[in-house]
Amino acid sequence: MKRTLIGDLKNHTGEEVSISGFVDVRRDHGKLIFFDIRDRSGKVQAVVLPNRAEAQEKAKELRAEWTVSFKAKVNERPEKMVNKEEENGAIEIEVLEIDVLSRAVELPFEKDQEVNIDTYLDNLPLTLRSEKSRAIFKVQAEIVRSFREFLTKENFTEFQAPKLIGEDAEGGANSFALKYFKSTAHLAQSPQLYKQIMVGVFERVFSVGNVYRAEKHSTTRHLNEYTSLDIEMGFIKDHKDVMELETKLLKFISGSLKEKCSKEFRLLGAEVPDVPEEIPSMKLREAQDLIKKETGKDKTSEPDLEPEDERWLCEWAKKDKGSDFIFITHFPTSKRPFYTYEDKEDPGYTKGGDLLFRGVEITTLAQRIHDYNELVAALKKKELDSDKFSFYLQAFKYGMPPHGGFGMGLERLTQKFLNLSNVKEATLFPRDINRIDNLLSDPGR
Amino acid sequence: MKRTLIGDLKNHTGEEVSISGFVDVRRDHGKLIFFDIRDRSGKVQAVVLPNRAEAQEKAKELRAEWTVSFKAKVNERPEKMVNKEEENGAIEIEVLEIDVLSRAVELPFEKDQEVNIDTYLDNLPLTLRSEKSRAIFKVQAEIVRSFREFLTKENFTEFQAPKLIGEDAEGGANSFALKYFKSTAHLAQSPQLYKQIMVGVFERVFSVGNVYRAEKHSTTRHLNEYTSLDIEMGFIKDHKDVMELETKLLKFISGSLKEKCSKEFRLLGAEVPDVPEEIPSMKLREAQDLIKKETGKDKTSEPDLEPEDERWLCEWAKKDKGSDFIFITHFPTSKRPFYTYEDKEDPGYTKGGDLLFRGVEITTLAQRIHDYNELVAALKKKELDSDKFSFYLQAFKYGMPPHGGFGMGLERLTQKFLNLSNVKEATLFPRDINRIDNLLSDPGR
Repeated sequence: MKRTLIGDLKNHTGEEVSISGFVDVRRDHGKLIFFDIRDRSGKVQAVVLPNRAEAQEKAKELRAEWTVSFKAKVNERPEKMVNKEEENGAIEIEVLEIDVLSRAVELPFEKDQEVNIDTYLDNLPLTLRSEKSRAIFKVQAEIVRSFREFLTKENFTEFQAPKLIGEDAEGGANSFALKYFKSTAHLAQSPQLYKQIMVGVFERVFSVGNVYRAEKHSTTRHLNEYTSLDIEMGFIKDHKDVMELETKLLKFISGSLKEKCSKEFRLLGAEVPDVPEEIPSMKLREAQDLIKKETGKDKTSEPDLEPEDERWLCEWAKKDKGSDFIFITHFPTSKRPFYTYEDKEDPGYTKGGDLLFRGVEITTLAQRIHDYNELVAALKKKELDSDKFSFYLQAFKYGMPPHGGFGMGLERLTQKFLNLSNVKEATLFPRDINRIDNLLSDPGR
Repeated sequence: MKRTLIGDLKNHTGEEVSISGFVDVRRDHGKLIFFDIRDRSGKVQAVVLPNRAEAQEKAKELRAEWTVSFKAKVNERPEKMVNKEEENGAIEIEVLEIDVLSRAVELPFEKDQEVNIDTYLDNLPLTLRSEKSRAIFKVQAEIVRSFREFLTKENFTEFQAPKLIGEDAEGGANSFALKYFKSTAHLAQSPQLYKQIMVGVFERVFSVGNVYRAEKHSTTRHLNEYTSLDIEMGFIKDHKDVMELETKLLKFISGSLKEKCSKEFRLLGAEVPDVPEEIPSMKLREAQDLIKKETGKDKTSEPDLEPEDERWLCEWAKKDKGSDFIFITHFPTSKRPFYTYEDKEDPGYTKGGDLLFRGVEITTLAQRIHDYNELVAALKKKELDSDKFSFYLQAFKYGMPPHGGFGMGLERLTQKFLNLSNVKEATLFPRDINRIDNLLSDPGR
């Protein structure tokens, strides 16, 4: 008999069906045996009546996480037994025959129990099965799906960026090196240089992939491997075109989440943010003036925002502008990468900035330098060796339009959408300085 | 004025528009200056008339790959001048004003010129702009897009697989190692173990991401970094469910390519294959018997297919069954990974196999072992240390349904769809033993 998904059972009342799934929990009530069964589409309670001797025999053995297939009859519940809160609260499943597909050992703790983060991470093959984790990663999958859908509609072409790179182009200690045959390679910290090259090919491109930061931290904010959502677009007027596109993109993602993940957001007690038609925007110096005026704290000569400033500005945007989002633009060129475009009308400051959301930065965006000679000069100014960038520089030698783009960390975005306290909860298999799945307890091997 | 895309110009005849793009080529015909301009949507010929002195001045300077914006009038061509072969053969673009956005140096060769593979790879920021390369990577993007669309419709959930792994679980010399703080990490050769873990979470999952093989070859078939399209599905009866899903998936991808990439296939002189309702399938031993009977070559005791066998079987399937595809199943367990399911009715042989397409293997698929004890025994049989697999094994301890899946290399798939001779032509920025963008000429650093 063809399998019926649990989410479809309500369309099969009165029928005999075949159901497959994981046993969530079993309860014995005298001669009645109840168990909850879940599959990818939902969960339902099944009952084995005393007159089904063989099925009862098997049902008595069932434990959490066993997988089973069974034949059952789908009955409507008597009106007074209907539970409108439950997804399948209007039906009851009467088990006829059970087939055990696989058994499980006794669980170290209940699947949906809250455990500390180390226990959670040590047991991911189990803890990821919890309702909460499943909801988080359903939301994450929908963020990526809708990100791609929007960009494809907007004529962006997806490309596969390499992660093995030769020189670590942007320098710095945060790069993982590896032996690559007779040479040394590095793991890419972003697809930045490649997405710019690709603007010369397709004008508008995006990429989704892992990037690497060799940061020696293990905090609620750090990951050594994460998924970067990257876009780059050509023939822009300036960074405002990028901000406008990002606003539309976030509106689209937020709309998709409302449509497809309301159940998950409800379960996690989170709310999908509304994205305004125009996200409030101010320059760094204006933001610092505002902070000074409102809080008395003088940060007007700082070259960057501190975490408390980001939080304050988000609270201000929410209260004063009704927005969960705020753009802060025009950071000093000295604090931004070599390829960032300087605002000729505001020398020393960049045409670009950060997007803040619920207290933290979720995107860095900018217009980029497109003129070959300016780019070579910018490398020199940062004391970078332009020979090491010769491959990348070809794109500019052979003509590049004005362009810009942004990158977002998928895990952080998921975390903030869902108000999770630790980015690792929004990362399937997080890597940090102490852990690659297992704790790294064996230094020096 | 808002930009009009070249692909939309035919809907704006008689209007004044603003066009932006790359100069493809310029031709002077006495007092008329012609240039071809391309943007992400297409290409068109523009003309600057002698009475536009300022525009003529600028147009005279234009060279290939300069980027420009210009105002123009879209005119219908007189009927006898209409060229039905060209995408914009029914209109002519009269340039009014030109704005040069960026210049380019003189090209080392014409963008669309055929060059040898090393020259091609040395100049990717330019050569990727050729019509041919753009068509290849448009097709590649559509393969990935339609792969995801089909699977999402079929209730698969996308997940982000880690690429930094602890132990190289499947052993072997083909793994890149790197220093990970005080430990050693490896680059994943596939997301196999993670996608199996994820079957316990979402039942049906897929993943798109880079994988790594430290193979010391530089051939037309090898890549050290490639993109793997991976799926895994739970609650299957056996490997035939996986074959059935893969057939439907390929039918869907092929349908999407016909619909959206016919221009690209035409340009590349390739044909989108028809995928039959049911792809022909035979066991390895049957295939070898057939080869013996038809060619006289006795390979009936070989444990695997050789490249010439794969080619022969594909030719046979095309001729005899009218199919570009053929499944070969039941390879010896000794030649397949530890997690592969043995056919109890055909001991020593696996419930799985390869999908061959146009002469080569494009997928390996199989049912996997789902019983914890069988899996531990299978590890032992391959002399692998089950302690090193303890994280993965948790998934099976805590209950796993019968499941299976497959992996496909995106670049090879693109190559075979388009009949390209070298897989590097279907890889944006290919890595091999000698090259990471630049030739690795500096051994030992």
